[in-house]
This record gives sequence, C-alpha cells and structure tokens, in this order.
Amino acid sequence: MSRVFNFSAGPAALPDEVLARAKDDLLDWAGSGMSVMEVSHRSKAFIAVAEQAEVDLRELLGIPGHYKVLFLQGGATLQFSSVALNLATQDSVVDYAVTGSWSKKAIAEARRYATVNAALNMPESDAPWGPIPPVADWALSDGAAYLHYCANETIAGIEFPFVPENGAVPIVSDMSSTLLSRPVDIEKFGVIYAGAQKNIGPAGLTIVIVREDLLGSARAGTPTLLDYDVMAKSGSMSNTPPTFAWYMAGLVFAWIKHSGGLEGMAQRNSQKAGKLYAAIDNSAFYSNPVHPECRSWMNVPFTLADDSLDVKFLSEAEMRGLCNLKGHRSVGGMRASIYNAMPEAGIDALVEFMAEFEKVHG
Amino acid sequence: MSRVFNFSAGPAALPDEVLARAKDDLLDWAGSGMSVMEVSHRSKAFIAVAEQAEVDLRELLGIPGHYKVLFLQGGATLQFSSVALNLATQDSVVDYAVTGSWSKKAIAEARRYATVNAALNMPESDAPWGPIPPVADWALSDGAAYLHYCANETIAGIEFPFVPENGAVPIVSDMSSTLLSRPVDIEKFGVIYAGAQKNIGPAGLTIVIVREDLLGSARAGTPTLLDYDVMAKSGSMSNTPPTFAWYMAGLVFAWIKHSGGLEGMAQRNSQKAGKLYAAIDNSAFYSNPVHPECRSWMNVPFTLADDSLDVKFLSEAEMRGLCNLKGHRSVGGMRASIYNAMPEAGIDALVEFMAEFEKVHG
Repeated sequence: MSRVFNFSAGPAALPDEVLARAKDDLLDWAGSGMSVMEVSHRSKAFIAVAEQAEVDLRELLGIPGHYKVLFLQGGATLQFSSVALNLATQDSVVDYAVTGSWSKKAIAEARRYATVNAALNMPESDAPWGPIPPVADWALSDGAAYLHYCANETIAGIEFPFVPENGAVPIVSDMSSTLLSRPVDIEKFGVIYAGAQKNIGPAGLTIVIVREDLLGSARAGTPTLLDYDVMAKSGSMSNTPPTFAWYMAGLVFAWIKHSGGLEGMAQRNSQKAGKLYAAIDNSAFYSNPVHPECRSWMNVPFTLADDSLDVKFLSEAEMRGLCNLKGHRSVGGMRASIYNAMPEAGIDALVEFMAEFEKVHG
Repeated sequence: MSRVFNFSAGPAALPDEVLARAKDDLLDWAGSGMSVMEVSHRSKAFIAVAEQAEVDLRELLGIPGHYKVLFLQGGATLQFSSVALNLATQDSVVDYAVTGSWSKKAIAEARRYATVNAALNMPESDAPWGPIPPVADWALSDGAAYLHYCANETIAGIEFPFVPENGAVPIVSDMSSTLLSRPVDIEKFGVIYAGAQKNIGPAGLTIVIVREDLLGSARAGTPTLLDYDVMAKSGSMSNTPPTFAWYMAGLVFAWIKHSGGLEGMAQRNSQKAGKLYAAIDNSAFYSNPVHPECRSWMNVPFTLADDSLDVKFLSEAEMRGLCNLKGHRSVGGMRASIYNAMPEAGIDALVEFMAEFEKVHG
C-alpha cells in the first residue's frame, strides 16, 4: 500500500527520501556491487560514510572540537549504566531529575553504582502536570559528580523548556526523543546521549556526545566497550559498529541539512506541535494534562472524554492511514509522536480526523 | 554494477535473495505502508517476526527447550565482558584456550573480572600452525567456572575440529564466524555467542544461546542489559532491540532452512573450502600455514610466494569482481572469507583466477 502517516513513538517513521535512497543502494551501494551492510567497517568506503556522518552531525548541532561524538550500541538504556560507570565512583553523589518513566529508569540503574539524590521528583503520574520548577528550587547535592535529566519524556510527553544548570557540575542529558528536533547549546553539557530510533535512524545505534575532560575516568570493572575513552580513541571502532544503522543516520543527517538544518526542524516542529495542541485545547472532548510550558514537541499524548471510544478511534484512524496512535501500555489513551520525519500534512490529517470523530461521538 | 563475489571477513556478504526481499520491503513491509525499521518492537507485527526468527534458529540448530536464545547488541566483544560477569565471581578461576587473535582478546577482557588460566596457549603467529592437541593434554584448572574457546579464528583461519569438553565445566564458545555453517551439538555447551555479521545478518546484532541453569548468577554491578537473566526474562526486549537486524537475521534463517538447513550448509561449505585449499596446496606459489585438521571452512588465508605481487593480485582480482581478498591488517597476505552466502561459483572464479595469476607471475 502507499505510505501511511506513522505516529509510532519509536522505532519511528524515517523520511521517505532516506528510505528510498537506502532501497536504491540495497544490493549495489555506490556502484560497488555490494550492500553497505556487506563491507568491512574498516574499508575506505565505509569509513568515508562514517566520517561524513560525524561531520554532518557536528555541523548540525554545532559540536565544538573539545567534544567527542561516539556511535555506539545498546541504546539509551545501556547509557543509564555507562554514564555512572564513566563519570562517578562508588563514593560519588549523583543528582537526578525525575520527570517521568525514562528518568525513573535512569535513576534506578544509577542507584546500583553511586549514591543517588533525586534533586527533582515529579513522577509523571501526577495530573495536571508541571510546570517544572527552576533549578534554584531543586534539592541539589553539594559536589555531585553530575546532574542527569531526561530532556523529553516520550511516554507522558514532557519536554524541558530549559537546560538545568548547576555551576561546574557536568550536565548529563538523555535526549533520545528530542535530539535533532531543534538547536541545542552543546557547551552547556558534559554528556548528551540518544538512542537513534526517534530522529536519527534505525534502532541499534546510540549517539553519545561527551566533553573531552570527562574521558579517561571510567571505574575499574567497566566493560571495555562501555568505556567512553576507549571508544573515543578508536573512533567508535573498538569492535564492529552497527554499520547499516550508522549509514542510515548519515542519510538522515544529510536530509536534515538540506531541509533547513535544526532551525528549519525547530520551526516545523513548533508549528506541527502547535497545531495539534491547539486542536486538543480547543475541544472539550480531547485533553492533555501537561502544562503548556513543558509540553513536548515530539510526543503528544491525549485522552478522549470517554475512553470506551478508544478502540473505535484507533481503528477509524488506521483506516485513514493514521497509524500507531495508541498510547504507551503504561498510561493508555492516545499518543501522536511527531518527530522530524512526520510531515505537517500528517498533523493536518490527524487534526481533521479528530474533529470529525468528535462531531460524531463527542 | 552487477553483484560481485565479496570475500569480506565481516561485515560479510549476505544472500542475494535476502537482500532482494529486504529491498522489496523497505518502504512498505507486509503491506503496512511502513518499513520494518519504523514500527515498535512491541507491535504485534514485529513480535511475529522476532518470534519466527527464534523458532527458525532453534529448528536449524536443534536448540533444546532448556536453552534460552537472546538477541542482543554489542557484538562478540561485549560478550567477552558479559560471559565473565554472568558466569564467574571475582574469586573464580576461568579456563581459556588461546588459538589466535580473538581468543587473545577474550582472555584479556576476562582477566579484568576473574583469575584466568590459559589452559591452551597457541598464539596464531606460530607457523606452520597446529594441530590442536586433545583436551587431555591441556593445563585445565580444578573447579573452573567455565572453559572458553573461539571455535573459529577469523584472522588466521583456524577452526576447532572438536568441541573441547571438561566434565561438568560449562563450555563457552565464541562462534561468531562459524555458527550456522554446520550442525552443532548445542547440549555440549553452556553458552554460545556470535556477532551476526558473518553468517547471520548485519552488524549490530549478537546471538547468545545460554543454558537455563547458568542464568541468574550475574555479579553485582553487572550493567542490567548485560545480565543474561534479565534479557531472557524480557524476551530480549528490556530495551529496544536492533529490529532491522533481527528481521534480517530472520530472513537469513529462512533462507538457510530452504537451502538444505545446516546439513546442506555443511556440505556446501566443506566442498567450497576443499576446492580452495586444494588449489593452494597443489601450487608452489600459494600457501596456507594451518594444519589440515584445523583449517577453517569459513576463512581461508593464503600468501603468495612473492609478497611484492600482493597489490597486483588484489587489483586484478577486483577487476574480475573478486572483492575484499586482502588479509587482515595484522597479518597481511590474502584471506578469502567464504561464509554461507558465498556461492560455489565464487570459489570457482577465485580458483581460476589464482591459477591464471600463477601462470603469469609464478
């Protein structure tokens, strides 16, 4: 069938143009008579792909020279361990902001490696939710090894409207579902990490951006491949990297570049999210519990006034090619994930359907 | 251009049929209007793919019910850490057989986690190499937590002609470059692991087959995702798995099934390797230093009598569509990796070229 509007939270929609290019290349990449999947990660041809992807990512995000960019495996979840192993000792205190499911998972893993302080504790189950208080009001530790937060909580649709800063304490951010959706001031961070499967590429690739002075301090017993310093020194090739996912990420970076860069993405994403939240807010039938200040541009959860209509809503949406709108199993309701690859036409189609559904059932 | 014969050691050639199917599916998988890369790992459609892949792998290898099959990230190299973290304590003694580069890397990582004994120590630099002495002659420890060996050393082309057994000690094998090339008696093993990028699928997926009684003993501080028990209980979905690579592996398993299964693969692989080694042995110009008893079916390294001809050999081979024959950077010379996906026609073309090259330059 023709391509649908895919609102999946992740793995998520990729740009049609990127998939079409990958399809063209699949058995014969760059006239080689091979797939990019079939060549050594150490071949000149693949290294050119890998390096160009890094150059493009650095350009998009304005990553300064004193930051390393790593292309790893294991997703954000493995980073929950890696961050603590690389940046803290067993005697460290580490600060975490808890604003939803993903930061809860991150703090739980950190408890296994250091003394953890929940400097901000706002479980996502509270509704209405937010705003997020300023850092001055958080219960910060003295001398924390780092301060960790999740910039966008995919499940509840909560996005930080600011970067929490705490003097010289390294800021660590899980940006899995927001990286590349808008410009970021990289220099505010010690470490940024992101699973690829939202705005970057296929699942199985993880981007880590780490300030050089934080390298070289992994604790004893850190698995070698989880040591940022080892991976930085080897250009992320201490072992065989996920080459196809890296290549796909490169295609996505190129697509973002010629689609207006991160300023262009931000403009589109703000516009898309604005339309959808307006449709929700202007209706008595749909609702979203998150304070407008910290609503996510990427994940828009909403509920119907009558949840017995959920199944009907989902099946009618799907018949119109509006797919994967079901909310996360932990919260129910609906969720429209509208990452970079979701065109504004997808939002328009969803908003139109929502209005019609409300007219009939509201 | 048309497809070449790709002798890459890994990432390596995939069956044309598998790539063609992936290409067809790339923007519209199973009539969904989406790529398999774009859907949730928890969607019904993807779970069906994931489960079928496991069913097929179990059938191919005859994996008994008391073994778990895990679909992980990080490659064999991350397993060098995971094996020790899951199967040994800091006070354990662990036995390793060293037969080449990969087992050297494995033992080096294990030294960070336990007391290590090199029960067999045959560095691959010795030439001529082999045979491998029987286990009775190895320097085994009393009460080792496990015995680890690398079933096929990809770089030097050394393959174990037997499974080393040591009473009730769990046998752990890195089978990255041999798994699925022939039948294996799974019940002889505690753990088998393999990076996918030889006979299984694209890089970024790791298969671990682990006996159930070995689960649940990971030491404190093991990163959660490296704990076999956690991954077994979650069906390898504690985090987002590398869905596209998993799907590709499923296509490869199906291809093996309808190509005669592992018996069929073994017959073809034996035939292919036999032809190539015969061409080497019947020539005074080419040579391979490995004892016939432990020559690899998968990786056939060879040298020319005059190594100043190496560059010419490689470039002329490439002009005939015989690609990626250069030996590993650590050893030089040539290496023909002839995994399942290499058709016999590729061997014939290589042997023919070698004979002609020898006639001109020998």
